[in-house]
Amino acid sequence: MTLNVGVIGTGMIGQDHIRRLTHVLSGVRVSAVTDVDAGRAKTVADDLPAAVLQPSGQALIEDPAVDAVVVTSWGPTHEEYVLAAIAAGKQVFCEKPLATTEEACARILDAEVAAGRRMVMVGFMRRFDRQYRAMKEVLTGRSIGAPLLMHAAHRNPSVPPHFTSEMIINDSTVHDIDVARWMFDDEIAAVTVLKPRISSKAAAGFNDPLLVLLEMASGVIVDVEAMVNAGFGYDIRGEVVCEDGTVELSESAGAVVKRAGQYAGRVPANWRERFVSAFDAELQAWVDAVTAGGTTGPSAWDGYAATVACETGLRALHSGRREPIVLRERPDLYKEPTP
Amino acid sequence: MTLNVGVIGTGMIGQDHIRRLTHVLSGVRVSAVTDVDAGRAKTVADDLPAAVLQPSGQALIEDPAVDAVVVTSWGPTHEEYVLAAIAAGKQVFCEKPLATTEEACARILDAEVAAGRRMVMVGFMRRFDRQYRAMKEVLTGRSIGAPLLMHAAHRNPSVPPHFTSEMIINDSTVHDIDVARWMFDDEIAAVTVLKPRISSKAAAGFNDPLLVLLEMASGVIVDVEAMVNAGFGYDIRGEVVCEDGTVELSESAGAVVKRAGQYAGRVPANWRERFVSAFDAELQAWVDAVTAGGTTGPSAWDGYAATVACETGLRALHSGRREPIVLRERPDLYKEPTP
Amino acid sequence: MTLNVGVIGTGMIGQDHIRRLTHVLSGVRVSAVTDVDAGRAKTVADDLPAAVLQPSGQALIEDPAVDAVVVTSWGPTHEEYVLAAIAAGKQVFCEKPLATTEEACARILDAEVAAGRRMVMVGFMRRFDRQYRAMKEVLTGRSIGAPLLMHAAHRNPSVPPHFTSEMIINDSTVHDIDVARWMFDDEIAAVTVLKPRISSKAAAGFNDPLLVLLEMASGVIVDVEAMVNAGFGYDIRGEVVCEDGTVELSESAGAVVKRAGQYAGRVPANWRERFVSAFDAELQAWVDAVTAGGTTGPSAWDGYAATVACETGLRALHSGRREPIVLRERPDLYKEPTP
Amino acid sequence: MTLNVGVIGTGMIGQDHIRRLTHVLSGVRVSAVTDVDAGRAKTVADDLPAAVLQPSGQALIEDPAVDAVVVTSWGPTHEEYVLAAIAAGKQVFCEKPLATTEEACARILDAEVAAGRRMVMVGFMRRFDRQYRAMKEVLTGRSIGAPLLMHAAHRNPSVPPHFTSEMIINDSTVHDIDVARWMFDDEIAAVTVLKPRISSKAAAGFNDPLLVLLEMASGVIVDVEAMVNAGFGYDIRGEVVCEDGTVELSESAGAVVKRAGQYAGRVPANWRERFVSAFDAELQAWVDAVTAGGTTGPSAWDGYAATVACETGLRALHSGRREPIVLRERPDLYKEPTP
Repeated sequence: MTLNVGVIGTGMIGQDHIRRLTHVLSGVRVSAVTDVDAGRAKTVADDLPAAVLQPSGQALIEDPAVDAVVVTSWGPTHEEYVLAAIAAGKQVFCEKPLATTEEACARILDAEVAAGRRMVMVGFMRRFDRQYRAMKEVLTGRSIGAPLLMHAAHRNPSVPPHFTSEMIINDSTVHDIDVARWMFDDEIAAVTVLKPRISSKAAAGFNDPLLVLLEMASGVIVDVEAMVNAGFGYDIRGEVVCEDGTVELSESAGAVVKRAGQYAGRVPANWRERFVSAFDAELQAWVDAVTAGGTTGPSAWDGYAATVACETGLRALHSGRREPIVLRERPDLYKEPTP
Repeated sequence: MTLNVGVIGTGMIGQDHIRRLTHVLSGVRVSAVTDVDAGRAKTVADDLPAAVLQPSGQALIEDPAVDAVVVTSWGPTHEEYVLAAIAAGKQVFCEKPLATTEEACARILDAEVAAGRRMVMVGFMRRFDRQYRAMKEVLTGRSIGAPLLMHAAHRNPSVPPHFTSEMIINDSTVHDIDVARWMFDDEIAAVTVLKPRISSKAAAGFNDPLLVLLEMASGVIVDVEAMVNAGFGYDIRGEVVCEDGTVELSESAGAVVKRAGQYAGRVPANWRERFVSAFDAELQAWVDAVTAGGTTGPSAWDGYAATVACETGLRALHSGRREPIVLRERPDLYKEPTP
Repeated sequence: MTLNVGVIGTGMIGQDHIRRLTHVLSGVRVSAVTDVDAGRAKTVADDLPAAVLQPSGQALIEDPAVDAVVVTSWGPTHEEYVLAAIAAGKQVFCEKPLATTEEACARILDAEVAAGRRMVMVGFMRRFDRQYRAMKEVLTGRSIGAPLLMHAAHRNPSVPPHFTSEMIINDSTVHDIDVARWMFDDEIAAVTVLKPRISSKAAAGFNDPLLVLLEMASGVIVDVEAMVNAGFGYDIRGEVVCEDGTVELSESAGAVVKRAGQYAGRVPANWRERFVSAFDAELQAWVDAVTAGGTTGPSAWDGYAATVACETGLRALHSGRREPIVLRERPDLYKEPTP
Repeated sequence: MTLNVGVIGTGMIGQDHIRRLTHVLSGVRVSAVTDVDAGRAKTVADDLPAAVLQPSGQALIEDPAVDAVVVTSWGPTHEEYVLAAIAAGKQVFCEKPLATTEEACARILDAEVAAGRRMVMVGFMRRFDRQYRAMKEVLTGRSIGAPLLMHAAHRNPSVPPHFTSEMIINDSTVHDIDVARWMFDDEIAAVTVLKPRISSKAAAGFNDPLLVLLEMASGVIVDVEAMVNAGFGYDIRGEVVCEDGTVELSESAGAVVKRAGQYAGRVPANWRERFVSAFDAELQAWVDAVTAGGTTGPSAWDGYAATVACETGLRALHSGRREPIVLRERPDLYKEPTP
C-alpha cells in the first residue's frame, strides 16, 4: 500500500522532502504539490509523474488523492495549513516551527484536542538522529545517574546577509530547545541569552555568537553556544553531565586521513550532510505511522512549547535578563512523552 | 513506477532483503518469493500483501509479474538462478558468492557476454558503505600519493559450531578480497595464508584467526586479519598506506560515555548493525539502476574474480605457500571499473 | 651547579614537590624543610640526606643554605612567607593561592614592585601542560581567528566531607580562572555563578556542580562547569571557539581497549595523574630560571588577579548576580604577558 | 648523591642524552665525554662545567671520576666499550644495537655471565613509553585473553640518501623486534620479509616499505609495516589482538583543531617528539638503578636476541623466505623477564 502525500511549499526544504518521499522512502509517493510561487510548484510537479499541481494549500488538502499532508511553506503560513488538515481529518507533518506565535500554536492545540486524537507531527529531526538517540538511551538506562547539566554547540558555517540575532534563536536554537525538552522529558522554566564577543564575520548590528542558557524545570541547566558564521563547517556538539558520568555526541565517523603532520577527519559541510539520515528516518517514521492509522514523533505540544521558548528567548535577548517561561496546562492528549 | 522484484531464498539474508525491499527502499516491492523450504517461503509470503508464492526459482523467474530477481538462496544454487535470469532477460541481484566455483562463474560470464549487456550485480555491500567510499575518494583524489600497503581486520564475534577455516576465507575474507580489488582498481596476483596462534575459543581442528596476504598486480600488499571468534563485537578495520599519508576507517560514531574511569564508545554487535546503511544503499542503487534500464555495482567479473581468489586462498591455506592467481582474459563488457 | 631549595609546608602537595625536587628534576636539591607540624616535617627531613629541619618558615628563609624558597603551606600563611622571601632577596615559588585575600596579594605586589624585580612565581601548573600549551599556540598562531567563547569543564572525582561550594570556586575554578586570563592575555571583567540541579552525591547544603561564567574584558565569555563529585574520574575539558574554527583539549592518550562491545580509553583518576608532567615542567622551569638569576611563569600579578576573581566569584555565588571585577592599576613590572 | 656518568660518542643521540643527563634528569651529571671526532667532543665538553674531555673510550671508562658509562658511539664500536666497562666493573647503558653481530653480542653475554651480575642495559626506549606500558599492562591483566596477533606500523618521515633496506631492519624494525619480545615475554622463532610496492620516494634500488612478519615461539604473529619515507610524520602504531578483545596505541594527545572542514590533531614530527618522555624515563630508570647498585631494563640478552633477529631479518630480506631463528641457551642470569 502506498501513502499519497501532498506537499505544501516547494522551496528548498520542500524540494528536499519531495526528493526523499519520491526516491528514498518506502510506501509513499507525492500525489500533489502546491506553492505560493505557482511557477516553482509547476516545475517541481513536472518532474513527478504521480503528482498533480494544486492551486492552493486549501485545494491540496481537500484533494481526495491526498491521504496526508506535508507542510514546508513559509513559517507564518503553517498555522492555516495545519488547522485545515486537522479540519479535513488528514494527518499532517509540519516543518518547524509549528506556528510562529504562541497564540497560533495554542489554536492548533485546541483544534487537535477537539479532534480527540494526535494528527500533527512537527519536524524536529534531531530526535531521529542516531547519535542523539544513543545519548537518550544512555540517559534512560540511568547507568550514569541523573542529569545535571548539558553543554551544546550549534555551529552553522554561514548565513545569508539578512540573517539576524533573532533568527539564531528561532531558526537554529529552536532545535537545541527541542532536544533539551526531549532529552530530559522536561519543560524549560527560564531562558537567559548572553552576548559574547561578536565575530568579525557577523553583519553589522548582529550578535553572533550567542550563549543561550536554558533552565529546565528539574534544575538541569543547558548552555547552548549558537553561532551561525562558524565558517569551518556544520558542527553540532552535545554533552550531558550526570551524577556518575557524562555522555557526548562523538565526532562524525568517516575516513581519517594522515597527511602533512596531521591526522584529520571531516566536519560536515552543512545540515543536510549532518542530518540526512535523521531526515530520512523522521519522515519514514511518519509515513509508517500514518499508514498504520496514527502519527508519531514530536507533537503539536512540542511545537507549542518550542515556540513559547523561542518567544521567551527573544525577550531574553532584548532584555538581557533571565526570562521565565509560562506554559498553558498540558492537555491529556499530550501526557505521554513523545518518541 | 514501482519495480516488482522476485526473491529466491527466504533464509536469514533473504528475509532481511525482503524487509528492506518492502519497508525501507523506494520504488520497489516484492512481487514473488520462493524457497527450497516451501513452508518457510509460505510464511514469508503470507506477510507480503503484494507477493505470490512460487514453487521454484525457475517459476519465479518466468513469472511475468517479476521484473527483476534477487538471489539469496544457498550458494551452490546461485549459478542456476543467475543463468536463468539472464536467459529470461531479467536483471538479477545475487548475494555473494556469485557462484561457488571458478567454472560456474565462468559460465555466468559467458552467458552475460553473450547477452551483450550487464545483467548481474553481486552483493558486495561494502562498496556502498559511507566509510569505505570516503576511503576510496581519498585514494582517487591522490592527495596522499599512490597506495603501497593495506592493513585490514575482519573480526566477527562468533560463529556456529560447524564453521571451518575454509569458511573464514569463503564467507568472511571474500569481502576483504572484493574491497582490495575495488579500492585499488586492480586484480589480486597471489594469496598466502598464515596461521597465527589459535584462539582457545575456536572449535577443535579449526584455525582461527588467519592472516591472509593478498598481493595485488601493482605490488600493493593487503594483509587481512580474519577472526571469527572475536567475542567482543563485529569490528571491521582498514588502513591504506600511501606514499604521502594514510587513510583509515574511523571507529563507528555514536555516543561516547564517560563512566567508571573510562571514556567508551560502542563496537557494533554484528554485521547487520555495522552495515545496515550499506545494505540499504546497495539495494536502492540496484533498484534505481534497474528501473532506469541497466544495473550497477559489483559485476559478474567481480564475482568471478572473488571466487577465484577464494579458491586460491583455500589452496594457500592447505599448502602453506604463496599461491598465484590466474584469471581468464577480461571481456570488454567488464573493462570499465565498477562503482 | 645545584640549586638549594627550602620547602615550607610538608603536607600532601609539599611532599609531592619534595619528591619531584629530589628524584625527578635536574639541578636542584631540597636543602631545608619546615612545617607547622614539626613531627611531620622531621619525618620528611629524615628521608632527605641533604636537608636540614628548620623550626619555622622564617628560619628556613634566612638559612644561608637555602638559595630559593618553595611555599606549600596552608593558604592563609602564604602572604607571610612570600613577603619574607622577598625581604630576604630570595626567589620564591608559591603554590596557589598567592594569598587568600585581595589585600594580602596587594601587599605582595607592593613588596615585589619595591624590590624592583620579579621574585615570585605562582603555582598555576596548567600553563605548563602540553595540551594547554598546544591550545595557546594555536590561538597565538591565529589560524582560526580571534577567540569568542570558551567552554571548560573541571570534574573532580570526589571531595572530603568538609568541602563547600565556596571551595569549588577557590580550589577548583581558580585554575580555570588562571587559564582564561593566560589563554587570552586578558583580564576578567565580571563573574556570574549559576547553580544547576544539585548532584545527589553532594553533601547537604552544598551546590555541586556550579556553572561559572567569566566575562573577559574583550567580551570573550568562558563558561566553566565545575563539579567536584563527578565520581568517574578527573576530567579536564576545554574548547575555545574562534571566528574561523575551534581548538579543544583531546582525551588523554594511552592504550585503547576493545572488549565486551566497547572501545575504551582511560580517564585520569586524579589531578596527580592528569598533571604530573605539568607539575614537573613547571617546577623545572622555575629551577632553571632561578639558576639563571630570575624567575618565570605566573607572576604575583597573576596570583593577585586570580584571588580577586575568586573573591568576586564568591560574591556572585551568594548574590546570584553578575558581579564586576575591579583590579588596581597594573604596575609596569607586570606589563609583559607571563609565559 | 650525584651519579657521575661518562659518555662515549657525542653525535646526535649522544648529545641528546648529554642534554638529558645535564638538564632534565635527577641525581646525575656528565663527568667525562669522548668521541672519535675529538673536535666535536671538545665542543660538547666545553659546554659542560663538570665534564672532562677524555682522549678515548678506554680512558673514559678507566677515569675514576666516571661511575658509570653511556655508550652512544657508532654501532660497530659498542662491543669494545661494553666489554671494557664490564671489565672495569662499571655499569653501562648502551644505545641499540648492543653489538652489530651475533658473535659480538655473545661475547658480551659471556663476559657479563662471568661477572656474575647484570651490568648492561640496552637502549630500547619504547619499554618506557607510557602507551606501550599501558598496552603491556592490559595484556598482563589478561582481561582480554591470550594474545594471538599483533599489527605494528613504524613510519619514519624521511631518511638520508645513503639509507638502505637493510637499515630499515637494523635501525627501525629492531625497535618492533624488541617490543614483540617484551610485550609477549617470548622469543621470535622465525622472520619473513615481504616487499610491497616500492614508494616513489625511495632511492633507486631501495625497498621501502617492507612488511616484516615475526613469528613468536608461542605462535603469535606480529606483522610490522616498516616505512622510512612516510613523509607526513613519525607515526608509530600498534594493536595486539587477543582472544577476547584488542589493545591499541592511541593517537598522540594534544589539541584538536577544527578548521576548514576538518577536525585535526598532530602527528609527531620525528622520533624525538614521539619518544622524548620515554627517553627521559629510560635513562632516569637507569640512573636510579645504578645509584641503587644495580641496573634495570632491557638486558644484554635482549640486545643479543634483537641482533640475532635483525641478522635473520636480513637473511629473510635477501632470500625471500621464512628464516628460522636459533638462539643459544639462555643463561640463568637472564631468566627473569626484563622490565
